[in-house]
Amino acid sequence: MDNLVIPIPAREGWSASLKCGDTIRLIDVEGGQAADLWAYNPADHTEFLSAQHSRVHMGQAYPVEGWTFVTNQRRPILEFTRDDSPGRHDCLAAACDRFRYQILGADSGHASCEDTLIREAATHDIHVSRAPQPFNVFANFRVEPDGTFNLDECLTKAGDSATFTLLADAVVVISACPQDIVGFQPGGPTSMAVEISSRRAGDDGE
Amino acid sequence: MDNLVIPIPAREGWSASLKCGDTIRLIDVEGGQAADLWAYNPADHTEFLSAQHSRVHMGQAYPVEGWTFVTNQRRPILEFTRDDSPGRHDCLAAACDRFRYQILGADSGHASCEDTLIREAATHDIHVSRAPQPFNVFANFRVEPDGTFNLDECLTKAGDSATFTLLADAVVVISACPQDIVGFQPGGPTSMAVEISSRRAGDDGE
Repeated sequence: MDNLVIPIPAREGWSASLKCGDTIRLIDVEGGQAADLWAYNPADHTEFLSAQHSRVHMGQAYPVEGWTFVTNQRRPILEFTRDDSPGRHDCLAAACDRFRYQILGADSGHASCEDTLIREAATHDIHVSRAPQPFNVFANFRVEPDGTFNLDECLTKAGDSATFTLLADAVVVISACPQDIVGFQPGGPTSMAVEISSRRAGDDGE
Repeated sequence: MDNLVIPIPAREGWSASLKCGDTIRLIDVEGGQAADLWAYNPADHTEFLSAQHSRVHMGQAYPVEGWTFVTNQRRPILEFTRDDSPGRHDCLAAACDRFRYQILGADSGHASCEDTLIREAATHDIHVSRAPQPFNVFANFRVEPDGTFNLDECLTKAGDSATFTLLADAVVVISACPQDIVGFQPGGPTSMAVEISSRRAGDDGE
């Protein structure tokens, strides 16, 4: 196994073209920080990890350890294999984008998860105009029984992590969310890290 | 006002290019039937009614009377102006599609809401490969406090309806859901109808 730890600076992103069987451990380095995650089929960019299809596939609204995410063609693409965090994650809230920050009165140059996706995906020749519903890792967003949808504060502590295993080859994009106006990130936008474990060709012979 | 009532045969769809201010009354003719609804900006097909952005905009998970749906550019596109039904609607479950029916063991020719969208949108020169999250009118799908996502049976009776007003020009597509394997439509797939009220040019001078 190769293990590689890569920092994601605050408000920035990371992406890689990964293989089926590779694992990603996403680390909230300082605590109280959420990440947006997307995964695309490298051979057909119209196929990607889909929250709406995954909810139906799992019969559950919130991603938890053991979840299989499927694509918009109902094929498994990512498994949530281990959760070393308080267990709160979301796939109901849209990524932040420049329209959101305009409404919130931010400067026009404010970073957004959508812009990070567009930029990172382009480095893999995937051309995205608008962000699909992301998997919002460590985001503590909840539906109340009366239908209220609350963006509660992240509960993660420094060093908490979540681990995912690729169930298909995929280009994975992660954005360290730059939201600093709506206060669900008590740590403010901070850095994160990913630890990648890839099976080398030799590992298959075990 | 021009009022026009158009039947939607069971398992089929309807679409129209409508103007800001037009209203659509969607009628469950026989009861126990759900519809998938989408709305696209006719001038920019990458902008469409977005459930994920609407949830954040409204701070609520379930569409109810008074809701404003926004697009994936956070602009208002559709208001839910009147609800003459038991009040259960969804925007969390993906549209049914041919991949879903393959998994469920249906015949390869089984109709799907995604195929209906693709076909109807194409008549307006909107080329869709996969369905965005629809607004599932009359669909009684609920998130339980433990996160379980249930596809409960539609509660509508014959003649129940829901009325929407366009807040921007839009191509609207509606699919009378053909789901007959997963049993959330107690009426089985049945016909629906839309009543369209469009403001003529002369109405603007009131």
